[in-house]
Amino acid sequence: MIIWKLKTMRAIEFNNELKITENYSMPEPQKGEALIKIIIAGICNTDIEITKGYMGFSGILGHEFVGIVEKINGTDQELLNHRVVGEINCGCRCCEYCLTGLENHCPTRTVVGIFNRNGCFADYVTLPLKNLHKVPENISNQEAVFAEPLAAAFEILDQIQIKPTDKVLILGDGKLGLLISFVLNLTEAEITLIGKHQEKLDIAKNQNVNTNLLSDLSIEKIYDVVVEATGSISGFELAQKLVKPRGTIVLKSTIASEKALNLAPIVIDEIKIIGSRCGPFKPALSALEKNLIDVTPLISKEFNFNQAQEAFKLSKTKGILKILINF
Amino acid sequence: MIIWKLKTMRAIEFNNELKITENYSMPEPQKGEALIKIIIAGICNTDIEITKGYMGFSGILGHEFVGIVEKINGTDQELLNHRVVGEINCGCRCCEYCLTGLENHCPTRTVVGIFNRNGCFADYVTLPLKNLHKVPENISNQEAVFAEPLAAAFEILDQIQIKPTDKVLILGDGKLGLLISFVLNLTEAEITLIGKHQEKLDIAKNQNVNTNLLSDLSIEKIYDVVVEATGSISGFELAQKLVKPRGTIVLKSTIASEKALNLAPIVIDEIKIIGSRCGPFKPALSALEKNLIDVTPLISKEFNFNQAQEAFKLSKTKGILKILINF
Repeated sequence: MIIWKLKTMRAIEFNNELKITENYSMPEPQKGEALIKIIIAGICNTDIEITKGYMGFSGILGHEFVGIVEKINGTDQELLNHRVVGEINCGCRCCEYCLTGLENHCPTRTVVGIFNRNGCFADYVTLPLKNLHKVPENISNQEAVFAEPLAAAFEILDQIQIKPTDKVLILGDGKLGLLISFVLNLTEAEITLIGKHQEKLDIAKNQNVNTNLLSDLSIEKIYDVVVEATGSISGFELAQKLVKPRGTIVLKSTIASEKALNLAPIVIDEIKIIGSRCGPFKPALSALEKNLIDVTPLISKEFNFNQAQEAFKLSKTKGILKILINF
Repeated sequence: MIIWKLKTMRAIEFNNELKITENYSMPEPQKGEALIKIIIAGICNTDIEITKGYMGFSGILGHEFVGIVEKINGTDQELLNHRVVGEINCGCRCCEYCLTGLENHCPTRTVVGIFNRNGCFADYVTLPLKNLHKVPENISNQEAVFAEPLAAAFEILDQIQIKPTDKVLILGDGKLGLLISFVLNLTEAEITLIGKHQEKLDIAKNQNVNTNLLSDLSIEKIYDVVVEATGSISGFELAQKLVKPRGTIVLKSTIASEKALNLAPIVIDEIKIIGSRCGPFKPALSALEKNLIDVTPLISKEFNFNQAQEAFKLSKTKGILKILINF
């Protein structure tokens, strides 16, 4: 016990500024938690937003990872030594949300690397056992690290019904927009991904997604569902001009800025707007296991831990998609 | 035919300003339309908004009425000489919306007294036969004239499922908020109407609706459904502070003004926002016929046509609810 407490680990910390350290105290798993040795982690736009002040977070960053369970505090040792990915919301386990499978909305939840809980950009992270999912053997680390954002894309199918006859538009050819296009393209609906970057759109095109440059899009209210994944308010404004009366806008980007908004058209056209955040890992891992979705073209570059500053810098660069950090 | 064309009628016209005229040309029903002699009409907040420039409308105002069918252009004469109320959206009858029962969203629709179609503040109005509903005998004119706004309240039950275990909050004790409270109180859910005016809340209280003054409301995210019917952006902001994660905000007011809005909480809490406009007349008339709802306490005053200016003036006065005009 004392040996563990004295041990330190490498970590990427944010506390007003990004700091790479080799002397972070090792975490100790609480009851029902596992200690996970990180293999690989991915940088998400939310991490970048946090370094700009989003959520007022300080601590170890990161919430996308693949790791090996090294220690379990509890009797259920099934996951020991297994490769896992992990859901990032940790609920209180006793409120009405936690008791109805909605831990993601527990009012006192902590969130890995985002809110009141250290993240996975470190040699070790601790997480409740119930957050962990064994990674099927045929999924590589580089693929499995996409489980969390891919689950966020699957959240849409958990929230709304997409009918085979629906016309669906996804706005934004960033990482999330691309993953959403892969997931929604598993349905029989007519899916189109809209973006500003031909080279990003081509990634989706190569996986049989219809794509179109924003500049070539005709602005008509003809889409049953418009998914806003641009990360900017202009995307939301555009969505309102494209969604059919009685249609649905799915809001995926946590847009931290504020902007004027006229609500009258939402009432007149009886539009449904639905916020969508974290999602189910099972269908995400299943889609990867069955090779239904290829996430690897989204990897722009892999770095080692000691190149973390460089990795963060590159991840902020225009045109860059997923940056991975190997531990 | 020529005799009709020469005939004139009394009308309340808006064209940059409110004008009472006795020389408006009589309308002629088109094929499939009825000519309706107006008995009584109600002033709605939308009429007031139109006199401030909303929708850029000019023509005869008004969309809440009870009348007698005096003439039908077509073979189906069933409604002739019957007392009717009428739905206000007139679709093209051949687009995908009209063909699937969503005439209210026909892109080329006209709307009685609101958009590209003369209203009912006149001796006569014309409307497609399919917009008309016979008024059951036991419903008085003063009650039946509420069919249109009451239908708008029923629209909520057509759009979302309100479960018996739901906690529902209605914000706004104006006419629409009160009607919504009556309608939603027909469900087994826990309904509370919030307002700033004890005398208006008492109208709902007298019909067994839970009510609470805004000043006594504790701001907690505990409501499954929050209906925004205050007509102001502050109501929408408040709704966001009261709705549960994964809950629903129903937007009822066509708020013409613009205001800053941070969308991040909608995504984080996965809130659903649904715009809600005109609704089904059948359940509205049925509820009135069965005396499930008493709309008459909402009547502040009745006027005759020649007092129309006075009626409009009073309808803009704080504390005033429904103003009716007898023709």
